[in-house]
Amino acid sequence: MKFITSFVLAGMAAVTALPAAAQFAKPEDAVKYRQSALFVMAQHFGRIGAMANGKVPYDAKAAVENAEIVAEMSKLPWAGFGPGTDKISQRAKPEIWTEPVKFKENQEKLVVETGKLLVAARSNNLETLKTAFTSTAAACKTCHDVYRKD
Amino acid sequence: MKFITSFVLAGMAAVTALPAAAQFAKPEDAVKYRQSALFVMAQHFGRIGAMANGKVPYDAKAAVENAEIVAEMSKLPWAGFGPGTDKISQRAKPEIWTEPVKFKENQEKLVVETGKLLVAARSNNLETLKTAFTSTAAACKTCHDVYRKD
Repeated sequence: MKFITSFVLAGMAAVTALPAAAQFAKPEDAVKYRQSALFVMAQHFGRIGAMANGKVPYDAKAAVENAEIVAEMSKLPWAGFGPGTDKISQRAKPEIWTEPVKFKENQEKLVVETGKLLVAARSNNLETLKTAFTSTAAACKTCHDVYRKD
Repeated sequence: MKFITSFVLAGMAAVTALPAAAQFAKPEDAVKYRQSALFVMAQHFGRIGAMANGKVPYDAKAAVENAEIVAEMSKLPWAGFGPGTDKISQRAKPEIWTEPVKFKENQEKLVVETGKLLVAARSNNLETLKTAFTSTAAACKTCHDVYRKD
């Protein structure tokens, strides 16, 4: 029965373009996907943070390269929070699935902020980059505070 | 001593633009990074494969969206194979570090192939996409056969 349900859902996803979450072979893959995308994003965001916080010298080219990856990666994790993945979540709080509209707003906020971060990186101005970094980091934190367990 | 070495390396990375691997806080992060990037890429590549193999109906728009992500992701994992990460590898074979030139050729081959895959996806022609998918999958397999444990 479980197999048949999965099979039918996979078929529906292809035909009716359900949310991308339905494209994962199993919920475990969706969880691993979102964790992977968030980890890759965090690594590159951290490199911009190191410049913004003066821990490494400002490198305008590296800032742009990292911001490009952050901006693209920020769009990906959300497909991995689909139905069924709440059952096997580790740090994801139930509110993600009980407050989908608010959670979606947080996703969109991050995508907007990382877009601004990329624009800031391309300005080749460290002060501009610092401001955008702080604003993007705030978007991360706001969402983590509500939707992620410590 | 270990700490000092790491600290000096981190400083050098910032100043002299060493390979990106040196930007990871610790080798474990580099390994997790490369595994994460490869997993995200594989998920999107698999969706193109499902269309190429007739398991789901061809969706030209979805093919392009997935190919865009595959093309970008194919550039990322390699920074995670830096010095020191061979000690904590699970499936990565020692040849990665003893044959760096050949391993690099395999990386570049994949990036070229995923670039062609994106062009093929944008052609909106399923047969063209199938050909490019097969060619890209061969690049994955060639590298896995030599450099990845079963």
